[in-house]
Amino acid sequence: MQAMGSMKWDKTLGVSWVAVDWGTSNLRIWLMSKDSQVIAENISNQGMASLSSPAEFEQVLFECLESLLIDGEVLPVICCGMVGAKQGWLDAGYSTVPHNPLQYQMPVAVPTKHRQLWVWVLPGLCQLTPADVMRGEETQIAGVLCQHKEFSGVLCLPGTHSKWALCQAGEVASFSTFMTGELFDLLSKQSVLRHSVIDDQWSDDAFKQGVQDAINNPAQLTSELFSVRARDILGNGATHFGKARLSGLLIGSELEGTREWWQGKKVILLGDSLLQSLYKLAMEQVNIDVVLLDGTQMTLAGLTAAYEQQG
Amino acid sequence: MQAMGSMKWDKTLGVSWVAVDWGTSNLRIWLMSKDSQVIAENISNQGMASLSSPAEFEQVLFECLESLLIDGEVLPVICCGMVGAKQGWLDAGYSTVPHNPLQYQMPVAVPTKHRQLWVWVLPGLCQLTPADVMRGEETQIAGVLCQHKEFSGVLCLPGTHSKWALCQAGEVASFSTFMTGELFDLLSKQSVLRHSVIDDQWSDDAFKQGVQDAINNPAQLTSELFSVRARDILGNGATHFGKARLSGLLIGSELEGTREWWQGKKVILLGDSLLQSLYKLAMEQVNIDVVLLDGTQMTLAGLTAAYEQQG
Repeated sequence: MQAMGSMKWDKTLGVSWVAVDWGTSNLRIWLMSKDSQVIAENISNQGMASLSSPAEFEQVLFECLESLLIDGEVLPVICCGMVGAKQGWLDAGYSTVPHNPLQYQMPVAVPTKHRQLWVWVLPGLCQLTPADVMRGEETQIAGVLCQHKEFSGVLCLPGTHSKWALCQAGEVASFSTFMTGELFDLLSKQSVLRHSVIDDQWSDDAFKQGVQDAINNPAQLTSELFSVRARDILGNGATHFGKARLSGLLIGSELEGTREWWQGKKVILLGDSLLQSLYKLAMEQVNIDVVLLDGTQMTLAGLTAAYEQQG
Repeated sequence: MQAMGSMKWDKTLGVSWVAVDWGTSNLRIWLMSKDSQVIAENISNQGMASLSSPAEFEQVLFECLESLLIDGEVLPVICCGMVGAKQGWLDAGYSTVPHNPLQYQMPVAVPTKHRQLWVWVLPGLCQLTPADVMRGEETQIAGVLCQHKEFSGVLCLPGTHSKWALCQAGEVASFSTFMTGELFDLLSKQSVLRHSVIDDQWSDDAFKQGVQDAINNPAQLTSELFSVRARDILGNGATHFGKARLSGLLIGSELEGTREWWQGKKVILLGDSLLQSLYKLAMEQVNIDVVLLDGTQMTLAGLTAAYEQQG
């Protein structure tokens, strides 16, 4: 990651604190002004998976922020994400649902060698029955709750491990995880399907058909997945849109598995533009009333709320 | 692979032909007598995935059999499996169901540099609607049909890509593939679940609970899969039998997906001892009437039938 101090931004704006979303794959850092406006931001692939010890986490953060440190002053850093996992920098634990992640974020202080860095990591959320965990998404949910403190409704946060959360009067009442994104990655890159998911071609129709097939035959998912390969082999070279079909099958399976969450209700869909547009397309297929929110903005809002509570 | 001629067996027994099961991962070779009894056998990891050109297939086979070749005589070799795929030695194509794989095996001759090797590869089976393919299992099915030429009933052939086949009067009428084995491998070795599938401990009860959970909630499969991780994280170090649960969920999902194949019917279950015993346990959970057959013996019987038809 580039040292943040070497980046171009108006240096008369003082950096008051730093917001960090530190996930499995990526590290995203925002320099924040006193009134919590973003001054500069940076993203790198120095996620948890690329770091092998707690000392490495501090070193990466220090190298990135070193040039911003002012003698005699501390720089508060608020982190969310897998950085707080057992295999991360410091195990920040989990709060148990029902839980209000906006009111009770309870950041955990991380001991640092560099005394000018004051680092806090936000805990995740867990659910005892059925067993489930999230880490990072609770901060996005806190961001949503900033706008609607007494929010009741259903949130969908697609990703490597997609989360569906049910909120009641500002609390996360329950949630459920689906391995949609990780299965897509494994199947498209490492399974026999990789031979059939190589084209850049995309077809919304093939995607929607995949969604529909998964919804119609939920118990046949692992058979429908193989059909991506078989259709290619038997297609005599015709474009078969394997990537779109695979994506549609997995997202469709998630939708069928969450039917009781969304049937007859409005769903707030977070996420980045690409994933969000795919989920929106799939949701419209089953007539879900969707409201879009920017996932990154919600993360930032949640981190800001945590910083401001911390004071 | 060891040269077959260097192995210890009664050399007064003449090798009349060679049976080969050449899959993605393994190469298995049997030396056969004139009356098609096994004289010697050998297995190596020189499967299709480890070979990058047709010439390599011939070289591997030649090195293994070279010391058996007698001047002026040819050695017939009958192969089944992925060796006949597009990425294998020679694309042997597919026969389309409905098809009798015992009566019409139609081996494809492979051109060889070493003229003493007469090599044939058996074609696979395909189904146009819904699109599906098999390669190798059709030879096992032919082996079953050797014993019951007019067989009608349901066969289950578990594996990397599990196959269910419906036979009618000795023909394969239709079949369906489930990615059960490949998903187990990918999830247990490469996904986030790998952290929770490391123990050697096994529990039949955890396996059966996984089967039942997958059957009860077919649409929640990709969520139940994540539960293997969540149960471990929230279990405070208690043994959680992640491997048994993961295996049970995937096999249970396959059983729910094939309910119309087996409900109220007898199922003939092929396979090796470990996988067969797992499937048997799962099938008994849903009261399937199971008959066990040895998968390797069926492969050998199918290859023998092909050799004897070839004359």
